[in-house]
Amino acid sequence: MKIVFHGQNACSFVPGFTNLLSEAHEIIQLPDSLAAEADRQAYASADVIIGVQLTADMPVPASLKLYQLPGAGYDGIALGHVPEGAALCNCFGHDAAIAEYVMAALLLRHVPLADADQRLRKGDWAYRSGGTDALRTELGDQTIGLIGFGHIGKTIAARARAFGMEVIVANRSTPQDTDLFGRHYPLSALTEFAGAADVIVNTLPFTPQTAGLVDASVIGAMRPEGVIVNVGRGPVIDEKALYNALAQKQIGGAIIDTWYVYPDGSTPNPHPSAYPFHELANVVMTPHMSGWTHGTVNRRRVAMADNINRLTSGQPLENTIPIR
Amino acid sequence: MKIVFHGQNACSFVPGFTNLLSEAHEIIQLPDSLAAEADRQAYASADVIIGVQLTADMPVPASLKLYQLPGAGYDGIALGHVPEGAALCNCFGHDAAIAEYVMAALLLRHVPLADADQRLRKGDWAYRSGGTDALRTELGDQTIGLIGFGHIGKTIAARARAFGMEVIVANRSTPQDTDLFGRHYPLSALTEFAGAADVIVNTLPFTPQTAGLVDASVIGAMRPEGVIVNVGRGPVIDEKALYNALAQKQIGGAIIDTWYVYPDGSTPNPHPSAYPFHELANVVMTPHMSGWTHGTVNRRRVAMADNINRLTSGQPLENTIPIR
Repeated sequence: MKIVFHGQNACSFVPGFTNLLSEAHEIIQLPDSLAAEADRQAYASADVIIGVQLTADMPVPASLKLYQLPGAGYDGIALGHVPEGAALCNCFGHDAAIAEYVMAALLLRHVPLADADQRLRKGDWAYRSGGTDALRTELGDQTIGLIGFGHIGKTIAARARAFGMEVIVANRSTPQDTDLFGRHYPLSALTEFAGAADVIVNTLPFTPQTAGLVDASVIGAMRPEGVIVNVGRGPVIDEKALYNALAQKQIGGAIIDTWYVYPDGSTPNPHPSAYPFHELANVVMTPHMSGWTHGTVNRRRVAMADNINRLTSGQPLENTIPIR
Repeated sequence: MKIVFHGQNACSFVPGFTNLLSEAHEIIQLPDSLAAEADRQAYASADVIIGVQLTADMPVPASLKLYQLPGAGYDGIALGHVPEGAALCNCFGHDAAIAEYVMAALLLRHVPLADADQRLRKGDWAYRSGGTDALRTELGDQTIGLIGFGHIGKTIAARARAFGMEVIVANRSTPQDTDLFGRHYPLSALTEFAGAADVIVNTLPFTPQTAGLVDASVIGAMRPEGVIVNVGRGPVIDEKALYNALAQKQIGGAIIDTWYVYPDGSTPNPHPSAYPFHELANVVMTPHMSGWTHGTVNRRRVAMADNINRLTSGQPLENTIPIR
């Protein structure tokens, strides 16, 4: 088969990929922009495409059997343009990485490592045990509220529980794994949920149903010291409402990894929002990196190669996304 | 009874203390320096002293019944100067705080939050998912080696396990709680232990038996990327050997909270070692703060008041340290 890795993200999975395949296949790497005619022809003749972006202006891969995402989110895929007869599959493997990002960012709100280090290098012992002013808070005392309880939510919950945090969940369905959380809220009770947590974490993808789900009323119901984390997709949290709550210090802060504006060919270095989040001191802002580790790439490479091997041997594919 | 809180550290436990006592007692707060004659007289007539420093030049509290430490370490107490008939007790309650410090510092070695934040504020998306150069490592892939497996070690182990880390332990006795770790090493096998871990954490107190326990040979056996953490007591790790290994980059780095030199009345702002750790980039250095949280103070306040209530009612004291 002809396997096309389309774009920079997909191509990062190529090293070592053929070692995981049960048969020899033709491997082709293409750039994000399919400007060259040879690239367009290669794309159009693919049996398998690994990529994150499928739009109307791309060539039609008429004989495509599998469009494989090298990640979970498929908001870059115009579902109507997946050719008839092709399956669309995603993969995961990023849960542990995202949970490490979330726990690191949350712990840092309680443990002032950088400031303490800078001070002690100058002989300033201000944070030393025994000083009343030096007392810090503990993350383990807090309640974390997870919006969504799929792979990511459960992985965060397990780590949060180990620290002694109380875990609550807001989800469409009543979740299983009840040992991992205390109370469950339906998505219709998000304001009540937001008021019951010190930290709320969005782990939901961007879909028509989740767009703007965390709106001004939900953010307004958060505790004054509450922290909001987004490792799902940017637009699940209302952009303007989030900016205003932070700029006016209605909440304690935010840790934002998923955004509203992303680089593209013509604008490689955009600010990530129409609002100046980059001017706010109460935000930790990172460029959609939470899941991006060697471990994630290794786990996804194995999962994608396994799906191609399943295709070759006629077995059912894993993680098929319903598109029709 | 006359209860004396001696010094800044002890006095930070006073607020709310009387509410926890089963009977009314006289509460006296004294400064670290017992220079004033009135302070010396108050000290000498105490029934209970809460403090961290007992030396030969202090007045003798002849009728003392309990010397209560507001923490675990009793390396500031000259044991021979605890009056006959008085018990010496310590307390804990800092384990969750220290574990948060350790996990925060370790996670930060993998998740470059500060740099990513600074860059994205300028429109630099260098860490974005998809870039091969942006891939980070995962703490959960690593092995953590705990030297000592008391309260602190077990609390760190539980959190490390939740991240998927492998946990190994080096301890005097074969530890219980075998669900919390994989392999156990005797203290005589510290070099083998050090070579089997990515991170080694000293949690041991300073005693004649632990002084210099982690010496040049143990540090020399660490992995080239290995990280050493000290939240026990400074001198358990050989000062010169640690400095040299870091300065010569024989190991990956260190996270040091407990030191070799501390402030005193005449030198309030010392560097924490005779060696210039403050010039090293591969060290996170903090001023003995890892356990110092509101939660720790609350838990210790309860434990200390409980011990005084036990004294009042003639029940056996908790956490008595054998001194004779």
